Amino acid sequence: MTPLAKTPALSRPIASQDFREAMSRLGAAVNVITTDGPAGRAGFTASAVCSVTDSPPTLLVCLNRSASVSPAVHANRVLCVNVLSDDQREISNLFGGKTPMAQRFAIADWGATETGAPRLEGALIAFECVIASAVDVGTHAVLICEVVGIHEGRGRNALLYFGRAYHGLPTPDSRPREAGEK
Amino acid sequence: MTPLAKTPALSRPIASQDFREAMSRLGAAVNVITTDGPAGRAGFTASAVCSVTDSPPTLLVCLNRSASVSPAVHANRVLCVNVLSDDQREISNLFGGKTPMAQRFAIADWGATETGAPRLEGALIAFECVIASAVDVGTHAVLICEVVGIHEGRGRNALLYFGRAYHGLPTPDSRPREAGEK
Repeated sequence: MTPLAKTPALSRPIASQDFREAMSRLGAAVNVITTDGPAGRAGFTASAVCSVTDSPPTLLVCLNRSASVSPAVHANRVLCVNVLSDDQREISNLFGGKTPMAQRFAIADWGATETGAPRLEGALIAFECVIASAVDVGTHAVLICEVVGIHEGRGRNALLYFGRAYHGLPTPDSRPREAGEK
Repeated sequence: MTPLAKTPALSRPIASQDFREAMSRLGAAVNVITTDGPAGRAGFTASAVCSVTDSPPTLLVCLNRSASVSPAVHANRVLCVNVLSDDQREISNLFGGKTPMAQRFAIADWGATETGAPRLEGALIAFECVIASAVDVGTHAVLICEVVGIHEGRGRNALLYFGRAYHGLPTPDSRPREAGEK
């Protein structure tokens, strides 16, 4: 192995750019995180999502505290993690950009949930969550989210992001499509 | 979408098994996390790893507090996140099982780091970290890790886990192998 960024005495800081370049090698699922409630509807694309524990069922989401969606997420205290399927790359791009919220939500179909956070039709799976706590780390908040609902979507194949590119992955146990089924 | 686990009044808990089944749809990179120091050398396989912020460069790792490796990780306060390449499935299985530590480390080549946490030769990339803090969430600890070194490995393609199966993904910008190079 060759060091990309050497730290002679654990004191020289790693450059942000080197860190982001290295992190592009950590493949991850692509998710659209939505919220709704008193602070309004909002949504953003995130790959920094992972499982924490199954007792109680909990996942986490990392969110930049200066992101435009941040106040709504924190105020509503609910969110839905919509795990994108391979055919939702356009949705990923839209929710990851600067498009106004109304236009983001206009390009897809959304279902109701009990928390109120919109769930994306055609996603692979969706986790409806209540935000239990938030831990500030530098520029970001780590949102600790208790899962209160799970919704299986129509999506067949997963959308992954790795090496600054999208990749599709087949669901190993996906049932065959029925005749006439979209 | 059809609910896998309905929560009529946000009060019925989601079953652990339903949560784990749903989480198997969230694709993720496969990593071997190592540590070394006063509490000894240890390592385990983890997919619950994600980027938190680039200022300062920070990632997180979720670790079951009852795992055999947990005391060593917490006591040493350093770890190395070795992002596995596609040809390291056997290493993933070994570090994810019940094999004694010495036998786990015996099947691969390891390089030195300044923190002392072993880095895995042949990995895609490795993040050498100091554990800045730990947040307990249910059965697990979320380890907030400051990145103090980045090491590019020999690995070419990524190893992903999705739908309870391994998948390989090509690195989009991987350079062609040179003649005679392994």
